[in-house]
Amino acid sequence: MEFLQANLIYLIPVLGLIGIVVMIVKSAWVTKQDAGDDNMRSLAGHIAEGAMAFLKAEWKVLSYFVVIAAILLAWSGTLVETSSWVIAVSFVIGAVTSAFAGYIGMNIATKANVRTTQAARGGLAKALKVSFTGGTVMGLGVAGLAVLGMGVLFIVFYQIYVVSTGASVNGIEMEKALEVLAGFSLGAESIALFARVGGGIYTKAADVGADLVGKVEAGIPEDDVRNPATIADNVGDNVGDVAGMGADLFGSYVATILATMVLGREIVSVDNFNGIAPILLPILIAGLGVIFSIIGATLVKVNDDQGNVQQALNLGNWSSILLTALASYFVVGWLLPDNLELRGVSFTSLDVFFAIVVGLIVGALMSIITEYYTAMGKRPVSSIVKQSSTGHATNIIGGISIGMESTAIPTIILAAGIITSYGFAGLYGVAIAAAGMMATTAMQLAIDAFGPIADNAGGIAEMSGLPKEVRARTDKLDAVGNTTAATGKGFAIASAALTALALFAAFVGIAGIDSIDLYKAPVLGALFIGAMIPFIFSSLAIAAVGRAAMAMVEEVRRQFREIPGIMEHKAKPEYDKCVAISTKASIREMIFPGAIALIVPILVGFGFKGVFESTSSAEILGGLLAGVTVSGVLLGMFQNNAGGAWDNAKKSFEAGVEINGKTEYKGSDAHKASVTGDTVGDPFKDTSGPSMNILIKLMSIVSLIIAPHISVNNGGSHAGIDVKKQTEVPAQIAQAEDGLLYTNTY
Amino acid sequence: MEFLQANLIYLIPVLGLIGIVVMIVKSAWVTKQDAGDDNMRSLAGHIAEGAMAFLKAEWKVLSYFVVIAAILLAWSGTLVETSSWVIAVSFVIGAVTSAFAGYIGMNIATKANVRTTQAARGGLAKALKVSFTGGTVMGLGVAGLAVLGMGVLFIVFYQIYVVSTGASVNGIEMEKALEVLAGFSLGAESIALFARVGGGIYTKAADVGADLVGKVEAGIPEDDVRNPATIADNVGDNVGDVAGMGADLFGSYVATILATMVLGREIVSVDNFNGIAPILLPILIAGLGVIFSIIGATLVKVNDDQGNVQQALNLGNWSSILLTALASYFVVGWLLPDNLELRGVSFTSLDVFFAIVVGLIVGALMSIITEYYTAMGKRPVSSIVKQSSTGHATNIIGGISIGMESTAIPTIILAAGIITSYGFAGLYGVAIAAAGMMATTAMQLAIDAFGPIADNAGGIAEMSGLPKEVRARTDKLDAVGNTTAATGKGFAIASAALTALALFAAFVGIAGIDSIDLYKAPVLGALFIGAMIPFIFSSLAIAAVGRAAMAMVEEVRRQFREIPGIMEHKAKPEYDKCVAISTKASIREMIFPGAIALIVPILVGFGFKGVFESTSSAEILGGLLAGVTVSGVLLGMFQNNAGGAWDNAKKSFEAGVEINGKTEYKGSDAHKASVTGDTVGDPFKDTSGPSMNILIKLMSIVSLIIAPHISVNNGGSHAGIDVKKQTEVPAQIAQAEDGLLYTNTY
Repeated sequence: MEFLQANLIYLIPVLGLIGIVVMIVKSAWVTKQDAGDDNMRSLAGHIAEGAMAFLKAEWKVLSYFVVIAAILLAWSGTLVETSSWVIAVSFVIGAVTSAFAGYIGMNIATKANVRTTQAARGGLAKALKVSFTGGTVMGLGVAGLAVLGMGVLFIVFYQIYVVSTGASVNGIEMEKALEVLAGFSLGAESIALFARVGGGIYTKAADVGADLVGKVEAGIPEDDVRNPATIADNVGDNVGDVAGMGADLFGSYVATILATMVLGREIVSVDNFNGIAPILLPILIAGLGVIFSIIGATLVKVNDDQGNVQQALNLGNWSSILLTALASYFVVGWLLPDNLELRGVSFTSLDVFFAIVVGLIVGALMSIITEYYTAMGKRPVSSIVKQSSTGHATNIIGGISIGMESTAIPTIILAAGIITSYGFAGLYGVAIAAAGMMATTAMQLAIDAFGPIADNAGGIAEMSGLPKEVRARTDKLDAVGNTTAATGKGFAIASAALTALALFAAFVGIAGIDSIDLYKAPVLGALFIGAMIPFIFSSLAIAAVGRAAMAMVEEVRRQFREIPGIMEHKAKPEYDKCVAISTKASIREMIFPGAIALIVPILVGFGFKGVFESTSSAEILGGLLAGVTVSGVLLGMFQNNAGGAWDNAKKSFEAGVEINGKTEYKGSDAHKASVTGDTVGDPFKDTSGPSMNILIKLMSIVSLIIAPHISVNNGGSHAGIDVKKQTEVPAQIAQAEDGLLYTNTY
Repeated sequence: MEFLQANLIYLIPVLGLIGIVVMIVKSAWVTKQDAGDDNMRSLAGHIAEGAMAFLKAEWKVLSYFVVIAAILLAWSGTLVETSSWVIAVSFVIGAVTSAFAGYIGMNIATKANVRTTQAARGGLAKALKVSFTGGTVMGLGVAGLAVLGMGVLFIVFYQIYVVSTGASVNGIEMEKALEVLAGFSLGAESIALFARVGGGIYTKAADVGADLVGKVEAGIPEDDVRNPATIADNVGDNVGDVAGMGADLFGSYVATILATMVLGREIVSVDNFNGIAPILLPILIAGLGVIFSIIGATLVKVNDDQGNVQQALNLGNWSSILLTALASYFVVGWLLPDNLELRGVSFTSLDVFFAIVVGLIVGALMSIITEYYTAMGKRPVSSIVKQSSTGHATNIIGGISIGMESTAIPTIILAAGIITSYGFAGLYGVAIAAAGMMATTAMQLAIDAFGPIADNAGGIAEMSGLPKEVRARTDKLDAVGNTTAATGKGFAIASAALTALALFAAFVGIAGIDSIDLYKAPVLGALFIGAMIPFIFSSLAIAAVGRAAMAMVEEVRRQFREIPGIMEHKAKPEYDKCVAISTKASIREMIFPGAIALIVPILVGFGFKGVFESTSSAEILGGLLAGVTVSGVLLGMFQNNAGGAWDNAKKSFEAGVEINGKTEYKGSDAHKASVTGDTVGDPFKDTSGPSMNILIKLMSIVSLIIAPHISVNNGGSHAGIDVKKQTEVPAQIAQAEDGLLYTNTY
């Protein structure tokens, strides 16, 4: 115990390392599996090649961005005392690690897909094992890299800035260490945004394009080898749903941990860990989450084709969550002193544990409600099914209405979660609630990622003309994957809201303001502008999918028209042309929305500096962030849930569904209407919707990074920071915050 | 001049009265026109009957609401010193006047429709004259009643509470007079919400239902007499687009004037009007707007069938706006002292004039941008047209994307308008900007209302089998009407945003709080909940339309199936059954969304009273209102503009449109896809979208009404208000507000 106590800071990255070692073992196991016959290998090769081509093209563009941003960061880091040019190094490491996390996921997914197909020939149990192991590789890769990266960088910066200078762990030097570490998060989150948007545009352009001509016009099944867009569609699953999601969750995970660490610095903690226990806590919990995810993953299995896959996943998921919760109880008690205080709010270590539990409960409730709104057979999806019987338009009206409705209860839960976790442990409570929720990211991601692997496996089965029962088994996995994808998104948006709030609080502290007063005209104006950004961002993402899908439709129509014999299997379609369309469109179209997220906070933060007599630009930026957060959360839930509900409304027809006493199947008019809804929902749920949580967090992180530069303690000029003032910030705020909430007798 | 000066307060209602007299004259003129042959009269009779049946059913339900609300208001009015039971009387008058304004519009519209049809036989010039005169009757009715009602009630309450007691015009007695007057606005706005939602559900259920079976399934034209839902559809134009809109604009107009008056009370004004010039100014400008609208209306005419209707409308509109702006310059100089101050912001009378100009510019820019996003031939609509060629789904994706995009520039303009008008004249500037924008409501409404009259006229022409050129003429009017409807909505949402902000400021003053700090967890939580309300409200409204439309579709299908000979004109469809479906559905479905708007502020205001140690329930309610306003404005613009763009994308096919070098007409697949978009857009643009501005304002007014009860100066108990504290509010705030913005050297 004493050894642990003395070396805790060094043990944390080891937890991440364990995750990576297990990942390598599991990855080797997947690679060792049978990849099927030559035809299957060739198809899988096409998919892997297309995916790699996309990643390379994306990386090329992003490398320019990383270099330019790093230079700017290095320069700006030298301007204020609370930062350093080292932030640029940290940023580059974050960006590269994030890209690498995406690569790991895509690499294993393009191997696991065809091996899952082959395994599915032997039964559901084997197929689940291969696909879920593929998902686990990705989950452990992302979470392991995050814990390892954050852990090691924190040790380095802590040594450089604090230990070597003998500075206080609550002072400006520690603030500097964390500000530099924030560069890692900025790198991760900005790559995540580009990857999510780019990947999302890619996958949906291909999917929508393939469906519109293939399923609707030519009447051939999904994933039919005659459809020229089918390879692009399967590549899309990997670059969007796998690589994009991997970068996304890597960024989220890191941002959540970082926000908690930044707030933790302000806590004067009398503990056995040199006073940095509140800073170490979130990353330790994350590290433990990796270990419990490994344990939980071993529980995910079914015995035969009748096995309940959802149940197996739930068992694994809940085991790792409960183990993490249990461990948190002991870890919190071990690490933290009995009494803590942050910005005038005092709380006990037990309160911190309760805040973690609030986070877990909010996450669980969000998942349950998301499932209700997107699952087959429940009222929301059934209402869309029913409205499909009167045509395309009523199907769309139904889906939009359900999507909007689905924001109500989650918003109330979220607001209650914010207020309750704050009530337990102040702003640290809000942040640690988010960290608790994200602790089992490795498991969450494994569950999320196995879906697209199974989807791809089904595509390969279809294209290789394997027996029907193979496709039936992968379809069973894919259907479960649709639900887990929806609940995963509900989870992501909830954690983003809490993380954004924590980052918001961290920003307020560093910017030295003590309120964000909506009653001031410029703040209210900024709230409007902020709330508009998720709309324009979604518009750009959706329009990009629409445009790229149209180009895809025209290309597929052209090939059907100009290459005779495709329909009779006598000629091969030009798959690569469709792959090229998606790649080019997605790379081109991801830039502008991504730039908005990065540039707007900078423009507002610096542009309004000193413009208004007593509304600081930091306060205006705070109003902007509040607007982005609130509207991003709502639009994210709306789009994710509407998209999920439309998807499953369409799927309901596959098994046949009763409308007004008549059973309707695939091919009926009602089914065609439901396909329209599904197609509209595609960019909602896989492009713009899941980008919302990254948008919110990225804008908060950018603000946090520029906070020292626009700090009101900074007197409007870069030079000559009053160090004393800086370190006094918490005390200043404490006063304003005094009664910020009910006291902690609660 | 001296006489004017001494009797200004009595002259203001006379301006309203002049409007009403002119309205009566014009109404008599319309009634005198030829109503055509027996067949036309009979159809028009069916429409008028159905519309009246709806109004009666609606009034019956609303009368319960009015009685209950009045009792509650009377009771609560006795609890605080700044109110009185008289507020209930004021409320009932507001509700009845609003209903009456809707009735006037509907009465004239159901007369003008058939007379426009008959006039159209003689040429476009005559048809425009009849339909626009019908619109003018409605516009003058609404504006005249508002100015007359507000003017007379203000005289009465000013006499009772201030003059007869000899109290200060800036003190608590004047606050009481205006609080009681706020009851009038509450009555007007709550009837407006029910009328807009109820009418919106009615019209779109009928329209969607009629189109889906008639146009899409049976392949008969719009307004075909064989379609059982066609009478309901035409009734809908009157109850939704006319009566609903009349009540809506009556409420908006009143709320804007009221908000300015409430803020005006806080200004200590050394003028020749007993110190109440800042209170009288908004209502005087409104009265002058009525007169200038009468003048502007005389300019609206075309000479022959080749005349440009849009140009004629623009001439009338801009003349009345410019005349009002010019008059404002002199009126402001005459009324106001040179220097004024509100809550620590000082400004000159010229600054007030500039704020009015800002309002006019914001309104004009909003109209121009709305027109750009919804007009045929411009990039947005053309992009939807193009995306229709690849099917229903891409048409929907295109429309949603355009709708979201359309929020960007208007939001920036709005934010700039808020900040600039504030910069000129503080919060009074924001309020008076809205009042200036709304001054020519009579003209705006005339332009808005002639559209549905022409639409109905076209329907009657079609159903009576009149010659093609008659329909061509009414279609020309209808097409212009579609654009004016869209720009009118852009205008409405902009004025609502400014009005809501003014009401928000008035609320803050009366509730005695000095900031709405987003950094407090309960305020941020409330911001989330508030922002969610427009989503759930829209969801309910859209879902109601979807459900009612489905019932309509089934009824129409049943009639086609069970009544043989309809298609061969041998049997008459049962129109009344369809009318009954729309009536019942709309009355039933309007209640819940309306109740949300009324009850949530009350729940939050009273429910959180004293719950948090130093976050008052008033501050939490402020956060809620900010959330509602920001999200309501964005969702309103999104829905109105997406709906308008889809509508005109569909209309583009009627004249034939070139896509990829091929001209596509009505009946093509691309056209069918565009009909889907139009149908989805229907509830967006005519039910939920235009309800957003009422929702925002109504929630603000409810908050204003309960503000004295939840005031922090009220010490958490109803009894024993510290009168001194109440009157000191402005001074207290002044300090906090000191540097609220750049000083007024600007």
